[in-house]
Amino acid sequence: MAKKEKMVQEITSMQDDFAQWYTDVVKKSELIDYSSVRGCMIIRPYGYAIWENIQKELDSRFKATGHENVYMPMFIPEGLLQKEKDHVEGFAPEVAWVTHGGEEKLTERLCVRPTSETLFCEHYGNIIQSYRDLPKLYNQWCSVVRWEKTTRPFLRTLEFLWQEGHTAHATAEEAEEETLRMLNVYAEFCENVLAIPVIKGQKTEKEKFAGAMATYTIESLMHDGKALQSGTSHNFGDGFAKAFDIQFTDKDNELQYVHQTSWGVTTRLIGAVIMVHGDDNGLVLPPAIAPLQLVIVPIAQHKEGVLDTAYKLKGQLSQWVRVKVDDSDKMPGWKFSEHEMKGVPLRLEIGPRDIEKQQVVLVRRDTGEKLFVPMEELNTKIPQMMKQIQKDLLEKARQHRDGHTYIANTLEEFEQIVEEKPGFIKAMWCGDVACEDFIKEKTGATARCIPFEQEELGSTCVCCGKPSKHMVYWGKAY
Amino acid sequence: MAKKEKMVQEITSMQDDFAQWYTDVVKKSELIDYSSVRGCMIIRPYGYAIWENIQKELDSRFKATGHENVYMPMFIPEGLLQKEKDHVEGFAPEVAWVTHGGEEKLTERLCVRPTSETLFCEHYGNIIQSYRDLPKLYNQWCSVVRWEKTTRPFLRTLEFLWQEGHTAHATAEEAEEETLRMLNVYAEFCENVLAIPVIKGQKTEKEKFAGAMATYTIESLMHDGKALQSGTSHNFGDGFAKAFDIQFTDKDNELQYVHQTSWGVTTRLIGAVIMVHGDDNGLVLPPAIAPLQLVIVPIAQHKEGVLDTAYKLKGQLSQWVRVKVDDSDKMPGWKFSEHEMKGVPLRLEIGPRDIEKQQVVLVRRDTGEKLFVPMEELNTKIPQMMKQIQKDLLEKARQHRDGHTYIANTLEEFEQIVEEKPGFIKAMWCGDVACEDFIKEKTGATARCIPFEQEELGSTCVCCGKPSKHMVYWGKAY
Repeated sequence: MAKKEKMVQEITSMQDDFAQWYTDVVKKSELIDYSSVRGCMIIRPYGYAIWENIQKELDSRFKATGHENVYMPMFIPEGLLQKEKDHVEGFAPEVAWVTHGGEEKLTERLCVRPTSETLFCEHYGNIIQSYRDLPKLYNQWCSVVRWEKTTRPFLRTLEFLWQEGHTAHATAEEAEEETLRMLNVYAEFCENVLAIPVIKGQKTEKEKFAGAMATYTIESLMHDGKALQSGTSHNFGDGFAKAFDIQFTDKDNELQYVHQTSWGVTTRLIGAVIMVHGDDNGLVLPPAIAPLQLVIVPIAQHKEGVLDTAYKLKGQLSQWVRVKVDDSDKMPGWKFSEHEMKGVPLRLEIGPRDIEKQQVVLVRRDTGEKLFVPMEELNTKIPQMMKQIQKDLLEKARQHRDGHTYIANTLEEFEQIVEEKPGFIKAMWCGDVACEDFIKEKTGATARCIPFEQEELGSTCVCCGKPSKHMVYWGKAY
Repeated sequence: MAKKEKMVQEITSMQDDFAQWYTDVVKKSELIDYSSVRGCMIIRPYGYAIWENIQKELDSRFKATGHENVYMPMFIPEGLLQKEKDHVEGFAPEVAWVTHGGEEKLTERLCVRPTSETLFCEHYGNIIQSYRDLPKLYNQWCSVVRWEKTTRPFLRTLEFLWQEGHTAHATAEEAEEETLRMLNVYAEFCENVLAIPVIKGQKTEKEKFAGAMATYTIESLMHDGKALQSGTSHNFGDGFAKAFDIQFTDKDNELQYVHQTSWGVTTRLIGAVIMVHGDDNGLVLPPAIAPLQLVIVPIAQHKEGVLDTAYKLKGQLSQWVRVKVDDSDKMPGWKFSEHEMKGVPLRLEIGPRDIEKQQVVLVRRDTGEKLFVPMEELNTKIPQMMKQIQKDLLEKARQHRDGHTYIANTLEEFEQIVEEKPGFIKAMWCGDVACEDFIKEKTGATARCIPFEQEELGSTCVCCGKPSKHMVYWGKAY
């Protein structure tokens, strides 16, 4: 009465059903599994290894810019959450409430943190006295909970992993500088590590963070033409400082309020990687975050010398890349499919005939390109190809994004583009929330951001025809 | 109306009030702060940096022994928690319950994980089909919640950080091997990284983990003679597998239950470091986990060349140690106290006269020893001293422990030792829980473990006089 063995299965094609393709990929590449906890996912070893690589890259950037890691409690007393009016309005409807501890009913409910501004503010109020204590540049790696109705792995889950930076500064200028500095760190990271090009810009009033004075964002475009908010950085001004009474003595011995920022990215970035680079064979991972960068597949591995050569190559190449030999008892074709599904950037095939010729076969996951390479060239060729793949993935994503970015001069054009050509829409806007609401209602597209790089596409609002204030990136978003 | 500047303050002496000394140290060395969340602590940058070093050391050991990291949901549905009878009895009384998500009342309560056996079991049931899928060697870094009445920073808090390993194996032998392997990893880590010697042994039936077949433990002795359970490793046999129906097809195509283990250490280890190595001047950190290993304090730093030399030395020594220059505008004596409070292993003083003589002053935190060292010798001297300090701390802790380990042959001796000489007590035991209960009631001491290294101290139980089965380490514990 044996259970059935797991098999590499076909996945839905992107063309047929992008949402189903996504679900197939996250499951069959073993990034995640579901559990009996609604809306929460299990991040499996392969998925978590990607997150660890993301963490390592980001954390070193945070530390290089002077930030320190801390850990705050996961619970927030209801009274503390309520201290900043806009903030509680934004988050209270979507938090999980702890009402009982052991057998006892709590006198005050605790919410599981949806974000930790309130805890950081309380702490800053306690530890900041003088200008000498500033700036405070803290970051936290943790999980947070938001009680979402509809969930999708990585993109929107009840619980997700993230980092949240929280900083306090002596002046408004320093806070603004920090907000932009961290947005730039995110943008650089997305492009150079995740190979995802992003648009940097400011959120509209309607879309900004609950309690923020200004929210900056990086927006990326998925393969299906939908936008994904990939990271945000908020300038709070002194709003939270006033609500939480965070004051310091300045150099002239005067009491001043601090100026604060917060910024975060989440496991959602893994969703972005999947939807930007993936294809009908599964995941395609940029080498910089691939848990396994090179898989060696022995051909006719029972023949003398094949496995030995494979292990020798592994030993030799492990100084350059994360590499393993797939010496399982499956057929080579099966192994190819499995590692393609998992998005391993490069495959090395080695069989008896290759050994005779002192060469190997290299196959790129992203392009399928096949190369015959002399063994003696591998030490230079492999690192070179990793760089090339990383670069090509970014370039391909940029071309896709640029090729799916359109200009709308009228509302009719706008509607037609949304209908027929999913992607970013650049259009002028008067700055009025009424137009933003109207466009959303009419087309389903939202203002993704007011990009820092403005273009003068015209002088009137695409919606109402009144004088325009900004060029805006619009799009349907995850 | 300026707030008062923070000052380095005196701490209570260990002799006068060990508990207060501990509280003073964790607060004044800036490891933690309190928040308005009862029983939870804020781990500040200095405390978190220690935890990061602990994580790095442990994680590399886990990976070297073939383990992979994953992430499970933080919530456990009530029904899932109840699947294993002993387990739920042990944990249900001390969990936090989420009853509401947003505005809605949940149909089934969720507890915030106190530990994740149930989630891992559910997952293992889904992903384990054949012997080819075994072993599964997973680990998770996360926070857990246990609704404790009385809390102390690091030692016992409502929420704490930890890692929990969860593994599944084909045979009972492999599970037992794994349980002991990880206990040994913990023991080696404690001795070589934390400089804390531990006793390895098995918990009694009374003290074992809820749901385990056998619990192994490492026990250490604090400066005040109290014991601290510093890490545990559990062998579940196939108990959980049967409760959760985790079966696999073996090589003979027969269905078998898996055998499981779990093992964990927590931020409590930081409490152990404080209470084993600390002194009346504050923290004393082993170099291996010290966020800052060497602090350079310039003397008369306004004088020409002093700061330049300090920075130059920093640049030179940063290839060997984590080093910084304290160039703040405080007096040197003030800086000395601050870095002593924070337990920085080594201080380097450099002033105009030292520069003239091309030497520096080195002061060890652990011994107070002062050395004059020629600058040209620093590259060899500093790494050497780090090793020496690490070694001496372990040796000192071992001597303290051995000097506070006593033998009791009778209950009268036992009581007298507990009363007068806090420490470990070695005594023979018949194996009957009645004697264990009696000793606890009478003296407050509990069976810490049945050590692997047994000694034949006699042939009768220290309590009832019947034939003894084991030599046991007893002690009052945190």
